[in-house]
Amino acid sequence: MKISCSKNDLLYGINIALRAVPGKTTLPILESFLIDATSDIRIIANDNDMGIETVINGKIETPGKITINARILSDIVRKLPDNQVVIETSVNFKVRITCEDSEFVLNGNNPNEFPELPRENTENKITMSQFLLKELIRQTIFSIAATDANAIMRGELFEVSGDQIKIVSLDSHRISIRKEQLANTYEPCKVIVPGKTLNEISRILGGEKDDPVDITFDKKFIKFSFGSTKVISRLIEGEYFNVDQMISSDYETAVKINRNDFLNTIDRAFTLTREGEKKPIIFDIRDGEINIEISSSLGSMNSHLYIHKDGKDLVIGFNPRFFLEALKVIDDEEVDIFFVNSNAPCFIRDKDGGYIYIILPVNINR
Amino acid sequence: MKISCSKNDLLYGINIALRAVPGKTTLPILESFLIDATSDIRIIANDNDMGIETVINGKIETPGKITINARILSDIVRKLPDNQVVIETSVNFKVRITCEDSEFVLNGNNPNEFPELPRENTENKITMSQFLLKELIRQTIFSIAATDANAIMRGELFEVSGDQIKIVSLDSHRISIRKEQLANTYEPCKVIVPGKTLNEISRILGGEKDDPVDITFDKKFIKFSFGSTKVISRLIEGEYFNVDQMISSDYETAVKINRNDFLNTIDRAFTLTREGEKKPIIFDIRDGEINIEISSSLGSMNSHLYIHKDGKDLVIGFNPRFFLEALKVIDDEEVDIFFVNSNAPCFIRDKDGGYIYIILPVNINR
Repeated sequence: MKISCSKNDLLYGINIALRAVPGKTTLPILESFLIDATSDIRIIANDNDMGIETVINGKIETPGKITINARILSDIVRKLPDNQVVIETSVNFKVRITCEDSEFVLNGNNPNEFPELPRENTENKITMSQFLLKELIRQTIFSIAATDANAIMRGELFEVSGDQIKIVSLDSHRISIRKEQLANTYEPCKVIVPGKTLNEISRILGGEKDDPVDITFDKKFIKFSFGSTKVISRLIEGEYFNVDQMISSDYETAVKINRNDFLNTIDRAFTLTREGEKKPIIFDIRDGEINIEISSSLGSMNSHLYIHKDGKDLVIGFNPRFFLEALKVIDDEEVDIFFVNSNAPCFIRDKDGGYIYIILPVNINR
Repeated sequence: MKISCSKNDLLYGINIALRAVPGKTTLPILESFLIDATSDIRIIANDNDMGIETVINGKIETPGKITINARILSDIVRKLPDNQVVIETSVNFKVRITCEDSEFVLNGNNPNEFPELPRENTENKITMSQFLLKELIRQTIFSIAATDANAIMRGELFEVSGDQIKIVSLDSHRISIRKEQLANTYEPCKVIVPGKTLNEISRILGGEKDDPVDITFDKKFIKFSFGSTKVISRLIEGEYFNVDQMISSDYETAVKINRNDFLNTIDRAFTLTREGEKKPIIFDIRDGEINIEISSSLGSMNSHLYIHKDGKDLVIGFNPRFFLEALKVIDDEEVDIFFVNSNAPCFIRDKDGGYIYIILPVNINR
């Protein structure tokens, strides 16, 4: 194999593919890139749950393949001058990298030992803008369970029916739901995508409104194709929770509040919380005003904000982090919050059903 | 005590004083600030080796003092709205912090328990610009010994004689010397300042050419006064190494090289080094050209640069990090390097004696 490309094109591809290189692995070949220059120049990484393949601009002088340690290649290319880079293999999988007057020789590996990316059957295919996918991930990913016996909680439900997509994530204390209109109509289908895959995709996506992402999937794999990059991931198998039965539109207390003021006040209260202490933030909701209070081993905070309230007065306590994380991803200037009583979940939701954030309260013994 | 000040003035003072708050300590009171508002508003921190006192703008309504956990105060103030902040103490060292509609109550401590900053005798006093002090530190601090049985190697020599200041730092492999002209003439004196103190001062210094730093010291303490801030530090006691006897102007090989090209090439070679492996970078110096080579378990690099050479050809090996760190702090476009032989230290130095960087070679068994 002999290829030449600009340092910047090479580095761009490396940075994308690096997202699928595992930090630690028992299978050292996974710490490599497969550079596949048989037809075009592809940089491929694969951590066995997720694979990334990205095509870079460049010239193939001799077609071929090689695997090479991903982080060492990345370190070296980052430091090269902004000029043409030539990568050439020789006997025993030696890799020669030349740029201007510098020449590196690294030990590569047999490219045939690199595990192939799975090929999904393109049973289902939907298309949306990179911007929308990135937003949908940002607005839900925070409420997947970090580590949990239940693998399903570490993924997000992608459910398509007609021209609507619904994304759901949940842990044992809260649920995030985002719905959005798609440009086309599709057969009903649903899959559970690992949170880790969505996090990595979100980092790679350019996020332009005019650039599309094609999403194809079968029962086991999902593929996101955008620009010159493909991300292929295992799906989480199993039946997702029936969240529709947890949603109710009944309420006893409805509050309309300035999102930014509310967010900043809770953020201030959050400075008094310490990992493991689990002190609730207490909302005392009255006509026209909410009093916000927290008390921990570090001290106490008291604040109040003007609100518009319908219905009963209410005193209710929450984990402040859950409110913070939901309020941070909402773009509206004002939010509507619906409460039933101090033991029932509250609903932060917009009029059009674009988002619903459900948060369980904590017992405050009042 | 009751004071009021703007959030930004308060935060500015907190950020400066925080640099003397120890991360971990067996004396919990050291994790506090002393807020001393008896005559002006001072924020004071003290880790027992170094103390910082900074005066902030604000209004004293009731004079007094309080100690309060530094990191909690910092976390809270950072999150406050950009407005006036009132800090007021009440019985049992309670501290009430109010800003707009938010009110925090924290537990403070008896201010009399806070250890007083030492007062140095102003035996000696020198003055230089903040810019110069910051530069002198930056250009020498990298070669102090990180952890070493010898405490003296963890400090820098500040030696004044006449209108000249000389700063020296060294570890067992290299020496950095910077000399600079001062605006006034002083009695000869020398002290060893802890590297930690210099690192912290460097972070706080604004670094303006027109803003002065007054440096006063006796045998045990040194005080840096600039703007509304004073930093007081213990000195390292003992006799510094006699570096003058290690300096020689003899050489067999002299090289003039473009600093930036040389730096970038060594930086590239450095990507092939791994902690603990200690692979040398090898310079093969000939007429008009230097060949630069490294070979490690990760691979090898080979590069060459054009130079101007006087004297003998030479092959010599170094720890690439030592060369990198010296070349990074030199501002000249070209550097002159003087070698004796492959076992003797090399000297990177300018014509005027403003800097000398001495680096020991490593054995390359050729």
